[in-house]
Amino acid sequence: MAVRVVGFDGDDTLWHSETRFSMTQAEYRELLARHIPDVDVDARLADAEMKNLSIYGYGVKSFTLSMLETAIDLTNARIPASDLQVILTWGKRMLMEPTELLDQVEQTLKQIAGRYDLLLITKGDLFDQESKLARSGLGDLFIGVEIVSEKNSDSYSGIFGRRGIDPSEFVMVGNSLRSDIVPVVGLGAYAVHIPYSVTWHHEHVPEDQLPRQGWRRIAAIGELPSVLEGLY
Amino acid sequence: MAVRVVGFDGDDTLWHSETRFSMTQAEYRELLARHIPDVDVDARLADAEMKNLSIYGYGVKSFTLSMLETAIDLTNARIPASDLQVILTWGKRMLMEPTELLDQVEQTLKQIAGRYDLLLITKGDLFDQESKLARSGLGDLFIGVEIVSEKNSDSYSGIFGRRGIDPSEFVMVGNSLRSDIVPVVGLGAYAVHIPYSVTWHHEHVPEDQLPRQGWRRIAAIGELPSVLEGLY
Repeated sequence: MAVRVVGFDGDDTLWHSETRFSMTQAEYRELLARHIPDVDVDARLADAEMKNLSIYGYGVKSFTLSMLETAIDLTNARIPASDLQVILTWGKRMLMEPTELLDQVEQTLKQIAGRYDLLLITKGDLFDQESKLARSGLGDLFIGVEIVSEKNSDSYSGIFGRRGIDPSEFVMVGNSLRSDIVPVVGLGAYAVHIPYSVTWHHEHVPEDQLPRQGWRRIAAIGELPSVLEGLY
Repeated sequence: MAVRVVGFDGDDTLWHSETRFSMTQAEYRELLARHIPDVDVDARLADAEMKNLSIYGYGVKSFTLSMLETAIDLTNARIPASDLQVILTWGKRMLMEPTELLDQVEQTLKQIAGRYDLLLITKGDLFDQESKLARSGLGDLFIGVEIVSEKNSDSYSGIFGRRGIDPSEFVMVGNSLRSDIVPVVGLGAYAVHIPYSVTWHHEHVPEDQLPRQGWRRIAAIGELPSVLEGLY
C-alpha cells in the first residue's frame, strides 16, 4: 500500500484524557464516601454513564451530569448542594485544563506531517474537542478535523467519501481497539494500535473478535514513522 | 446567480428548539421562586449561560449545567438535592423529546430537494443535533450535515472549502441574523432570514450592523421555493 492519509485519534492517543477522568473520579469517590461509605461508587457511576450514553453522548459535560445524578441517587437526595457545587467545578476544571500531550507526540507528528496528510478523527463533544485541539498547539499539522459522535464503519465510510480517501491509502492510529482499529480494518484500511495505560472498560474488545491482520500494535507513537514506511 | 446548494439552520428554522428552552426555564423560575422569591432568576441564568459559553459551548447539556450552577449559587447552596434532581430530569426530557418540525418544513424541503443540494448547518452539541436530525425524519433529504461550534466567517469558509462550494451558488436559510445571515452575506453568498417567534437575546444584531443587500426576510419557509427561483 502507498500510505497517503494518516488518521489520529485524539484522547489518550495524542493527549491525556482518561487519567483526568480517573483523577476526578477518585475525588468523587472520596466525596461520596463521606455520605455513603459502603457503596461501590465507581460501579454505580459506570452504570449511570452507560445508561446515559444514548441521551448525553460522550464527553466531560455528560460525565459531570452523570456524577451529579449518581451522587443524588445514591444519597437519596440527602447530599448537600454545596457538594454538588464542588462536582460542577470539577467538570469546569476538566474543560479548562491545558491539553497535555503524550510523550513523543509533537516530534512524531512534525516528522511525518510533510510526508502524509494528517487527519484528526475524534469522538466526543464537539466544543470540548475543538477547544482541546486549539490548546494543544498541533492544529496546523492537520489537514482537517473530523469529530464524530461514534466511531464505527458508517462514520469512517462517511469521512472516506467526503474527503475522497481510498481505504487502501489510509492508516488509522489510536488507542481504542473498538473505535480506532476494528471498524477501520473492516473497511480495508490499515490500523496501528497504541495502548494507553488506563482504558475505559467500554472500549475493550475480546481477543477473538479482533481482526487477524490489517493492523499492528506499537508501544509508543515514536515507533510510528518506521511502521508507516514499512507499509510500502 | 445560479443557486446550487441551500444551507439550512436546524434549531428554530426546521424544528422547534427555543420554545423548549423557554418552557423549561418557566418551570425553573417557578421552582426557584419557592426558595428565593425576589430574585430575577432569568437574568441570573442568562448571566451564567453567557459566562459559561466559552467553557461549555451551546446545547441542552450546557443549559442544564448552568441551571444547576445558578440554582445552587442563588440559594447559597441551601436548595435541596431533590430539586436539583428535578432540574436534571428536565435536561434529559429536553434531549429525548421527539423533534417537532415547524409548519411547512417537510413539504418545502421535499419540494426543493430534487432541485438543489440541501445541507444542514447547525450550531450546538454534536450528539444532540445528530440525534434530533435522526428523529426528524428529514435526514435523507440532505446531502450532508455540518455541525459547528460557532457559525462565523471561518466556519462557513471551511464548509465551502471542504465541499467545493462557491459562495455565488450558495443560499443560507435560518432564523438567526447573527449566525445565519451576517457571516454568509459577508462571504458573498445569499441568505434568507425566517424569524422565529422567540429568539435568544444573544442572537440579536443591531439594525445598523446588518448588511444592506445580499439577503431578504420571509415570514415562513413556505415562501422559500419562489425566493430561490427568483434569484436566477
